[in-house]
Amino acid sequence: MIVAEKTSLKTMANAIRALSMDAVQAANSGHPGMPMGMADVATVLFSDFLKYDPKAPKWADRDRFVLSAGHGSMLIYSLLHLTGYERPTMQDIKDFRQITSPCAGHPENFKLEGVEATTGPLGQGFAMAVGMAIAERHLNAHFGSDLVDHKTWVIAGDGCLMEGINHEAVGLAGHLGLGRLNVLWDDNGITIDGGTELSTSEDIPARYKASGWHVVSCDGHDFDDIRKALREAENDPRPSLIACKTIIGYGAPTKQGTSATHGAPLGDEEITGTRAALDWDEEPFVIQEDVLASWRRLGEKGAAERDAWNVRLQNSSEAAEFERRMSGALPVGNAMKEYLEGLAADQPKVATRKASEMALGAITAVIPEMIGGSADLTGSNNTKTSSTKPLTKDDYSGRYIYYGIREFGMAAAMNGMALHGGIIPYGGTFLVFTDYCRGAMRLSAIQNTRTIYVMTHDSIGLGEDGPTHQPIEHLQSLRAMPNMLVMRPADAIETAECWAIALKNENGPSTLALTRQGLPSLRHDVSVNLCEKGAYLLKAADGKKSVTLIATGSEVSLAMDVAAQLEANGQGADVVSMPSIELFDVQPDAYKNQLLGGDEILRVSIEAGTTFGWERYTGLAGLRFGIDSFGASAPIDELYAHFGLTADAITPQILAKLS
Amino acid sequence: MIVAEKTSLKTMANAIRALSMDAVQAANSGHPGMPMGMADVATVLFSDFLKYDPKAPKWADRDRFVLSAGHGSMLIYSLLHLTGYERPTMQDIKDFRQITSPCAGHPENFKLEGVEATTGPLGQGFAMAVGMAIAERHLNAHFGSDLVDHKTWVIAGDGCLMEGINHEAVGLAGHLGLGRLNVLWDDNGITIDGGTELSTSEDIPARYKASGWHVVSCDGHDFDDIRKALREAENDPRPSLIACKTIIGYGAPTKQGTSATHGAPLGDEEITGTRAALDWDEEPFVIQEDVLASWRRLGEKGAAERDAWNVRLQNSSEAAEFERRMSGALPVGNAMKEYLEGLAADQPKVATRKASEMALGAITAVIPEMIGGSADLTGSNNTKTSSTKPLTKDDYSGRYIYYGIREFGMAAAMNGMALHGGIIPYGGTFLVFTDYCRGAMRLSAIQNTRTIYVMTHDSIGLGEDGPTHQPIEHLQSLRAMPNMLVMRPADAIETAECWAIALKNENGPSTLALTRQGLPSLRHDVSVNLCEKGAYLLKAADGKKSVTLIATGSEVSLAMDVAAQLEANGQGADVVSMPSIELFDVQPDAYKNQLLGGDEILRVSIEAGTTFGWERYTGLAGLRFGIDSFGASAPIDELYAHFGLTADAITPQILAKLS
Repeated sequence: MIVAEKTSLKTMANAIRALSMDAVQAANSGHPGMPMGMADVATVLFSDFLKYDPKAPKWADRDRFVLSAGHGSMLIYSLLHLTGYERPTMQDIKDFRQITSPCAGHPENFKLEGVEATTGPLGQGFAMAVGMAIAERHLNAHFGSDLVDHKTWVIAGDGCLMEGINHEAVGLAGHLGLGRLNVLWDDNGITIDGGTELSTSEDIPARYKASGWHVVSCDGHDFDDIRKALREAENDPRPSLIACKTIIGYGAPTKQGTSATHGAPLGDEEITGTRAALDWDEEPFVIQEDVLASWRRLGEKGAAERDAWNVRLQNSSEAAEFERRMSGALPVGNAMKEYLEGLAADQPKVATRKASEMALGAITAVIPEMIGGSADLTGSNNTKTSSTKPLTKDDYSGRYIYYGIREFGMAAAMNGMALHGGIIPYGGTFLVFTDYCRGAMRLSAIQNTRTIYVMTHDSIGLGEDGPTHQPIEHLQSLRAMPNMLVMRPADAIETAECWAIALKNENGPSTLALTRQGLPSLRHDVSVNLCEKGAYLLKAADGKKSVTLIATGSEVSLAMDVAAQLEANGQGADVVSMPSIELFDVQPDAYKNQLLGGDEILRVSIEAGTTFGWERYTGLAGLRFGIDSFGASAPIDELYAHFGLTADAITPQILAKLS
Repeated sequence: MIVAEKTSLKTMANAIRALSMDAVQAANSGHPGMPMGMADVATVLFSDFLKYDPKAPKWADRDRFVLSAGHGSMLIYSLLHLTGYERPTMQDIKDFRQITSPCAGHPENFKLEGVEATTGPLGQGFAMAVGMAIAERHLNAHFGSDLVDHKTWVIAGDGCLMEGINHEAVGLAGHLGLGRLNVLWDDNGITIDGGTELSTSEDIPARYKASGWHVVSCDGHDFDDIRKALREAENDPRPSLIACKTIIGYGAPTKQGTSATHGAPLGDEEITGTRAALDWDEEPFVIQEDVLASWRRLGEKGAAERDAWNVRLQNSSEAAEFERRMSGALPVGNAMKEYLEGLAADQPKVATRKASEMALGAITAVIPEMIGGSADLTGSNNTKTSSTKPLTKDDYSGRYIYYGIREFGMAAAMNGMALHGGIIPYGGTFLVFTDYCRGAMRLSAIQNTRTIYVMTHDSIGLGEDGPTHQPIEHLQSLRAMPNMLVMRPADAIETAECWAIALKNENGPSTLALTRQGLPSLRHDVSVNLCEKGAYLLKAADGKKSVTLIATGSEVSLAMDVAAQLEANGQGADVVSMPSIELFDVQPDAYKNQLLGGDEILRVSIEAGTTFGWERYTGLAGLRFGIDSFGASAPIDELYAHFGLTADAITPQILAKLS
């Protein structure tokens, strides 16, 4: 303890309490209870355990700290300010929850360095931390302890632990033996609705032990006890849950220990009482000089360690590769070009899930930072390649994770790996089960992480498994999500192009929607990545054009058949393949108008999913072929016929419209 | 044991095995491993424990049996056929996974009586069974054991137990002490990717015990041992997990015990070998006469119990009310009418979440079958009324469930209650967290359950909590889901009308999207439920109409302001309130065209969410105001200004377009 001589830890912790209650009061909204309850624990963490340097928030070997209970955002804002990060400034904190401040209602990784993850949707911070801890062990296995040797720390509340995703995260961490993951559980017995006894009777430590975790508890307001528990957790080879018995809203004379402190300002009177109870005399947003100095000294102690690390990095033969990976830059090479040329020569007729596997074979061989996986559908999602041997508790160097039947946990762990840096995660399940991991997919999009979702079985084309397994609304509902790049390739070449785009999409997630069923080869020229424009002319009308057929994925070949029938009936038809609406929407108007055709052209969309939203491309005067009900269980050809998605069913409707 | 004298249980179980492997082989797709592994356990369940009568599949007091591991659908199809349900016939089974057969790839409650729930999406069958068990205890508390006294049985696999929702379901069942819930876990150690050791190291029994469950295990191929375990489970007052140690694909000579039997036909050779190993000589789809007779005798044994129950029902003073509730018919009365007239007189200016609470106050007072709840946001979702006291382990008669921070578990439990019958469940969380329970919302839609989702904080209007809490794509992505009725009312009167519609929507779920922020009162006339048409003319243009403003929820009052500004600029504007796109889309074209206006009218949509999809109503020539990025953390007025959703920002753009 380097600070006790100057200022007591309790006083330092009270600085967090004061900032938290005052900022929430000033904003007239927010959550003071958690920061006030966990201030003592956080103070011990930042004083004696966490490896960090406020002057170098992106230092690769820093410990990762995730505030999973994101509503308690004033805790991390206080800590970052007090320890000396450039932001938030005191003005930022005064402007808590205002549009000009990086101190948003919930912590946002894209607004503040030092915020490792965007949290708030409960349970996900914890689950992302599991991914960070996987990333650390994996990079350690490849680059050694000289370069990678850090821990992951989490503060989580009862909400994080009650969410279903917690079971998945805990199971994964226990199975992979992530001993450097330590979770500080704010065990305050309070949820929004009242005491935890309203809704749960669980013996939480017993559950964690059942999944291979180490559990220790402490009095969250006794510094020695906290320190002892954290030390024990650090030393245990298993992931650790540290149950910190705390009082929510600690210090608030009439409200502490109640849900009244959880999510609302304390009020002026209670704040005055808290100041008295904590013996904190300063005005709002004023920190005593010696208290601030003590905090800043804490913030300075990581510099020496970082200096030593920098020396090791400079002396490492792997420095360049390590820095490349951490920067997110792809390796230089032409593997994709060669692979595409091979495809152009071979013209394989395969399912796009198989084409994805083939592309992955080429890509994973030359991009070592790619870590794949599947939520127990490896053989169906085609996500494993010969370059990706399993990542296990006994061999973290592996590049394939058997995530188990844990879609949400998988997606969150992938986010954590991407946030950690040095890894490009991809993982698969069936497209319909994006419903299970949508919360994490949205956090990929909010956080701008390069997380790649390999979603196979992307329509009724999966056949007999029936409506529970057949996506209908999923493509459109993912396209409606901001910053989510959805791509649905039509053949092996488009699939490879879409993979290239996903890898280059550094600032956001990509979803590849892939077929179970085999598809014909449609493309021949691979000189330009045509998918990059989102949509392109695959086939020009034979003669005078009267129709533009717009299709995606497996329906592009159907559109080719429809075009042939139309042209046999004297109606020229362009076929536009539109693998990505998002990429198309940002093209210049001239390109869009030219591709889709003017008012004199009938625009027709074909996609084996909901027609909702396709008016954007067809206009109201156009036709939209799709499925606006749930699917059914039958062989694929019967299903396409049943839902009217055949050239024989579609062509007459277009001809009728034209006449 | 009433059948052993004639046919051994093993032979009876082998009938399930034979039908399962032969049907999967005939369909050339499906999952033989689970039915073959669990055939012995299921035979004991249907012979000695389950209360059912194939002649009366809807008998209110039957035990509920849920095949949570829905991929093993041939297990339940075999059982229903063998015990004598009218369907499936042997032809239905021969046509397994064909479009004409009710024997779909996964069990579908709307295709076969005897299938209590649609399963396949893993973990949800189990979680719905928790809801069924709640329903049973609740109705028992109200109607007594003479009318309601049954159990809920589940067969679940490793996938169901590994999913996050399992943690939520187990926690809820343990907390509520649902002792009549018994889960048969197919403990075969195999998942799709291989042995469970690939992905999990969990001590499952210990986890269940940690949540207040009773756990017992048995050899799943030893009839006496199975019987003993089920008896113990029945007698224990806690919910029970029965770990049935089984061999997946039991009987397949070279493939049993491996993932090769999980999800693919065994193949002709292996099937021949299985016939030999099981000493089963019959041709495919032929059941020996005595074996079938033994099964049918089993199926007949419930009739006496049902007769006795019928007598009790006839003698019960509560028979009429019980039958009304189980039929799903609403009570007759005019509480809603009176409530609406009160609103028309009072013209309250409240948030629609508050208006929902007020409507619920009137409704829950007169509809006793409504059970409410919230995923730990009771005070925010405004879901509790004076009529709904808590439903607890000590008092199942209550009508309000503190679901805890378990959105997915809540939604699945609500589905289970609705499927059980006799209950209309409603429950709340924030609209953005539909992402957490979307899998269950989809199953509400597929299963046609009257499950009512009260989703508050429905836009950036929630203010400071920021982008993780602000829905953007959620309204449109839920509207894109088949059979999901989304309603976004604009004031207190519309909120009440939407509640009336939700209650009448017997064959599907409804989602009410409600504001955090206060809204002005817009409606005066309550003589007709105008929301029933999905959209209606709220305000007619003053003078010659040039614009139709189409808005929903909180943006309807904004549209009124825009209309006023437009008319001050000499442009007449209709304001159309569109609380439900789904209801509007099924109106006659004449109504739709008249309401929205012809080509000469500029159509403008205003909704504080993604503009994706609004082209359906505005056409490409119209304007769409909304938010196509993530939100931000700030006070509400600043946010609306920041995202350009103010009359001052919108009006000039419309005027520019008109000129």
